[in-house]
Amino acid sequence: MELNKEEILHYEKNYRANLINSVSGFKSANLIGTVSSKGNTNLAIFSSVIHVGANPPLIGLLMRPVSVPRHTYLNIKETSQFTINHVNSSIYKNAHLTSARFNEEESEFTKCGLTEEYLNDFKAPFVKESKIKMSVKFIEENEIKANSTILIIGEIQSIYLPDNIIEDDGSLNIEKADTAAISGLYSYHKTTLIEKLAYAKAF
Amino acid sequence: MELNKEEILHYEKNYRANLINSVSGFKSANLIGTVSSKGNTNLAIFSSVIHVGANPPLIGLLMRPVSVPRHTYLNIKETSQFTINHVNSSIYKNAHLTSARFNEEESEFTKCGLTEEYLNDFKAPFVKESKIKMSVKFIEENEIKANSTILIIGEIQSIYLPDNIIEDDGSLNIEKADTAAISGLYSYHKTTLIEKLAYAKAF
Repeated sequence: MELNKEEILHYEKNYRANLINSVSGFKSANLIGTVSSKGNTNLAIFSSVIHVGANPPLIGLLMRPVSVPRHTYLNIKETSQFTINHVNSSIYKNAHLTSARFNEEESEFTKCGLTEEYLNDFKAPFVKESKIKMSVKFIEENEIKANSTILIIGEIQSIYLPDNIIEDDGSLNIEKADTAAISGLYSYHKTTLIEKLAYAKAF
Repeated sequence: MELNKEEILHYEKNYRANLINSVSGFKSANLIGTVSSKGNTNLAIFSSVIHVGANPPLIGLLMRPVSVPRHTYLNIKETSQFTINHVNSSIYKNAHLTSARFNEEESEFTKCGLTEEYLNDFKAPFVKESKIKMSVKFIEENEIKANSTILIIGEIQSIYLPDNIIEDDGSLNIEKADTAAISGLYSYHKTTLIEKLAYAKAF
């Protein structure tokens, strides 16, 4: 069947959000850890963390417009630091709960049952229960003019991971680390490898 | 274990690319269909298609720098049109093969065993074997200054999909449509739903 733009624009807001959030395919499941200059920690789930480049190692994070205060955005701008922590099947419920609107004084860590961890003097908090995590330094932001969303670009400073998931070619077996995938706004998935292919050559 | 930036920068190029392409988590698996103004069709796999916004329905596509000619980019700029087609487990090998460097005159459709499909007078080709696909109109491009990658933003014109995957709340059950997920540069995964949660409320 076909759903065209005119129909989509007339759908009820939440129905449309669920639909359009589903059509891009599977998404990454990450918790972003930040701290304000006053020392308040924040933790927020994002399905919009993306690979941007390997040399230097860059990662991106698409954020909704900042017309309402968003602690993750404000903390990144104040401190130039954030952490990215993979969501796994043991913590997906806790991770999802971080999307609720808690007060500024309440840390999502406490409210959502996750544990702050501090590594190598990096000021932003990591999630202890996460198996693959990174410290990231803010580099630039780019505003998407069409809807005022903001693409935050950061440079990976350190990656923390179990040593048994690094493959011979440098790939990480994130499935072995139980990393989850997201579809839409609410669905959490585990994965099963179909096949790892090789560099594709023309013939 | 920890891998820090200094170590990462000294890794062999492909090893580093495999590592950094893995750390963002699972990625979407989509084929981008385009046509040049001369009528040559092109098909390319991308793991960087992302959700950008629901109203209007916007979708993004991160592309490597255009210092070498990239047909997908050039065709989008020439025609302002592209299609996004979900990769499923029946076509992941064909889809991956589109990443090989074929000559400009050779269409990846023919070389990779996928079938061109034309819907509703949209000029860019769809992939007949794909179950969820969209026609997209180019809206804007944003250059990431840190590494000259380009974020293409498009507006969804129509979505074509099996009618039995639309849930009551508008979400698509993309797992039921056998949509694949990618990790790193070479690994294709199928998924199993852990749980569909609800809108998270503070307490």
